[in-house]
Amino acid sequence: MDDRLRKQLDFSLEIDKEKNVFRQTHLSSHGRNENDAEHAWHMAVMAYLLREYSNSEIDIAKTMLMCLIHDIVEIDAGDTYAYDEAEQSTRKEREDKAKERIFSILPSDQKKELEAVFDEFELGESAEARFAKAMDNLQPLLLNNSNGGSDWIEHGVRAEQVYNRQKTTALGSEALYEITAEIIESNRQKGSLK
Amino acid sequence: MDDRLRKQLDFSLEIDKEKNVFRQTHLSSHGRNENDAEHAWHMAVMAYLLREYSNSEIDIAKTMLMCLIHDIVEIDAGDTYAYDEAEQSTRKEREDKAKERIFSILPSDQKKELEAVFDEFELGESAEARFAKAMDNLQPLLLNNSNGGSDWIEHGVRAEQVYNRQKTTALGSEALYEITAEIIESNRQKGSLK
Repeated sequence: MDDRLRKQLDFSLEIDKEKNVFRQTHLSSHGRNENDAEHAWHMAVMAYLLREYSNSEIDIAKTMLMCLIHDIVEIDAGDTYAYDEAEQSTRKEREDKAKERIFSILPSDQKKELEAVFDEFELGESAEARFAKAMDNLQPLLLNNSNGGSDWIEHGVRAEQVYNRQKTTALGSEALYEITAEIIESNRQKGSLK
Repeated sequence: MDDRLRKQLDFSLEIDKEKNVFRQTHLSSHGRNENDAEHAWHMAVMAYLLREYSNSEIDIAKTMLMCLIHDIVEIDAGDTYAYDEAEQSTRKEREDKAKERIFSILPSDQKKELEAVFDEFELGESAEARFAKAMDNLQPLLLNNSNGGSDWIEHGVRAEQVYNRQKTTALGSEALYEITAEIIESNRQKGSLK
């Protein structure tokens, strides 16, 4: 086997570990905690189905790829809960180190390409990154709402915190932001959000 | 919320159930059984990274989408093990019924579009379908090989059965077929394949 293909297959095997990184979100019907690989799959399918609601035109292949790889660094850095402010403050440092180790398994051109897509998502300035971030917000909101807001109840999350996070949804899609606002409001009224 | 978006979000929530459909393949490092959503995520990332080995040029967005949705019918039909011949004989009927129910949740234009992509994969005649099928074969082979062929040992699978399945890999990628043939041969020599 040539060196290039060996590196590509080594990376393919390495990312299998993402299936062992569990998130705070629970699957619908009060299921188990969701893992990063499932979350990324769900976001990518939703990005395709909901692309008509993007504020700006997007390259759908790039957006799907962004959804698929945006959490790969969590193989080393672990999942950082969106509403844990202490953990969020050390997130960048942990994830940068992980990014260097994991993407370095690839041939150098693909390392560069995937790191660029990863960084573009993190920066959140392109149309694709904004829409992918809207999916990153909407997907767990849908699951959590289907479970009566149980993840928010468990962590004592305040409506204000969720509104703050969902502001980035509006940058990707005004139409989808409206839905998230409706969901937050109904959970606030029911008392699942403080 | 308008009717179209409601249907799209209902479908998005419905497919969450794919995370509860478990396969015979085990995660690397002798992990638990893999589920369909994780498998689809892994295939889509691999399709992107390995697309240079496709026998023919492919539309990568379509190929990734195909990987992402190819097992959605298993929400109702369940996973059918590749080497269980009795179950394989009833697979099409079970999956057709599931396809009708699940994709009907979508707005009619998207139902038609996703069913067409699903059928194209099943038929396996387009360049995209052939490459996606190569991923569907290669991904579990990589995992199983990393575990010393333990899934084949558990089910008493014969090398001939795996070769037969991997024939479709060659239709999508001659280069990747060569790798699968090497993996099968080394597992036959070690005795993990009969």
